Amino acid sequence: MNLSQVLAQTRADINQQLEQLLQQRQAVAAPLNEAMHYALVLGGKRVRPFLTLQVGAICGAPTAMLQRASLAIECIHAYSLVHDDLPAMDDDALRRGHPTCHIAFDEATAILAGDALQTLAFELISEADAAVAPAQQLQMVQMLAQASGDLGMCGGQALDLSATGKALSETELAQVHIHKTGALIQAAVKLGVLCGSPAAQHYLADFDEFAYNLGLAFQVQDDILDVIGDTAALGKQQGSDVAADKATYVRLLGLEGAIERRDQLHQKALHALARIPYNTEVLEAFADHLLNRNH
Amino acid sequence: MNLSQVLAQTRADINQQLEQLLQQRQAVAAPLNEAMHYALVLGGKRVRPFLTLQVGAICGAPTAMLQRASLAIECIHAYSLVHDDLPAMDDDALRRGHPTCHIAFDEATAILAGDALQTLAFELISEADAAVAPAQQLQMVQMLAQASGDLGMCGGQALDLSATGKALSETELAQVHIHKTGALIQAAVKLGVLCGSPAAQHYLADFDEFAYNLGLAFQVQDDILDVIGDTAALGKQQGSDVAADKATYVRLLGLEGAIERRDQLHQKALHALARIPYNTEVLEAFADHLLNRNH
Repeated sequence: MNLSQVLAQTRADINQQLEQLLQQRQAVAAPLNEAMHYALVLGGKRVRPFLTLQVGAICGAPTAMLQRASLAIECIHAYSLVHDDLPAMDDDALRRGHPTCHIAFDEATAILAGDALQTLAFELISEADAAVAPAQQLQMVQMLAQASGDLGMCGGQALDLSATGKALSETELAQVHIHKTGALIQAAVKLGVLCGSPAAQHYLADFDEFAYNLGLAFQVQDDILDVIGDTAALGKQQGSDVAADKATYVRLLGLEGAIERRDQLHQKALHALARIPYNTEVLEAFADHLLNRNH
Repeated sequence: MNLSQVLAQTRADINQQLEQLLQQRQAVAAPLNEAMHYALVLGGKRVRPFLTLQVGAICGAPTAMLQRASLAIECIHAYSLVHDDLPAMDDDALRRGHPTCHIAFDEATAILAGDALQTLAFELISEADAAVAPAQQLQMVQMLAQASGDLGMCGGQALDLSATGKALSETELAQVHIHKTGALIQAAVKLGVLCGSPAAQHYLADFDEFAYNLGLAFQVQDDILDVIGDTAALGKQQGSDVAADKATYVRLLGLEGAIERRDQLHQKALHALARIPYNTEVLEAFADHLLNRNH
């Protein structure tokens, strides 16, 4: 399979597993279950579970645990989108071309669906699994919590809110992204490693450096696409970051400067991969795909 | 020490530990950290951590892990209050006589503070601890997630939202409470047991039955106090449930019927305790205190 086929297959698998996961639950409150389902299967690139699954496969992780970890990271991502879209936050009515969760349902249900998706992530990742050492699994839980909370993703979202309308330096802008989106991309990769063999643990720092640079480059590319992308392909209004008066790499560095920065980060990500003595071709191809995407 | 002294001491300990916990964190975004702090130390009865600590002590749980578990359960409780108070949910401006989190800060910060408090609970409870078997600790994480999510507390909150203004049967009303508040009280108790000795695990079901009945009785007493309590002692408007057109035990059973139901549940809680061959006097005294409180 080439990368597009692997990506399409992963997306199909993830979508099916998410469907199954929610169908199997004996819902206490039907609207909450439906809103969680809506938020989870609305689509998206499934970047994070793809990374978890591929890195885990490279590191020899057992299948069932790896799968649960990949769903857990997608639950965290989905919850963060539902809450970010709320009127009090980014106030977005459209996500990937569909009404956002609080528009499709209501605000209270969207808040609860986000809350419950976060909890579901921790439920999935802490389910007993004979194929994984409990101490190793605890490390996965601990790392996911650290990456998602006030010192990670939530902290980044808070930084982002307070930064709107302010003139940020590149360092400050990077701080927002490293926390808001980078922390979870790093977590996706590290879950794959932590779920893997003892030998693979030696390369945790290298995998992490790959993820750090990939995550930041991904964000630079987002800013580039906000300027040069088209609305239909993006599923959101092109130029919406500029309209919202947000600091972006293009604004700070110019379009060419931003492209240069993206390519530097891309190279750093590849250098980190090169230090890992496993076959990481799929990750190289994925980085290339992600950073040269047009939506 | 008598019960009042133990309660006062526990409250002081918990408050100090929560203060310390947030001060030690290198905040990414100061307002988020302040809002989490505000939500956590606003006061409250600390019913849940008290239960975790006392049950854990009875079951021979190691101190440090037990402490972290007690803070974790309070983080979940605090997050649920912050989100329940939001304009889209119960729209409360006052809690325990103080402005609610979204009034003291803003709505976006309150949403994020709630999110990050939930994550912090899972961070606390998954921190590596040499005194606890990792498999046992994983069970604690798993149970806390199940009790807090869509099949537990969040599901109960969703049921409660959809029940407002509807005529519920007693069974339906109990379903709301068993999930919305009961699940977390049961979790508080079960955390103490799961953190304890192997021998104590034999009594998990008895402890759970104690907690189930205590939690429901606690809620019946809440409804009773909404009718006969006074506003100053409650820290919220007396009669506010009636004003919000909510189903209550008093409405369903009358005041005397509700008192009778509370006392039946109280008795069941005590019978469950009686099956446990440890000294559970402090839990008996606490149940008595909780169910005969006037605020």
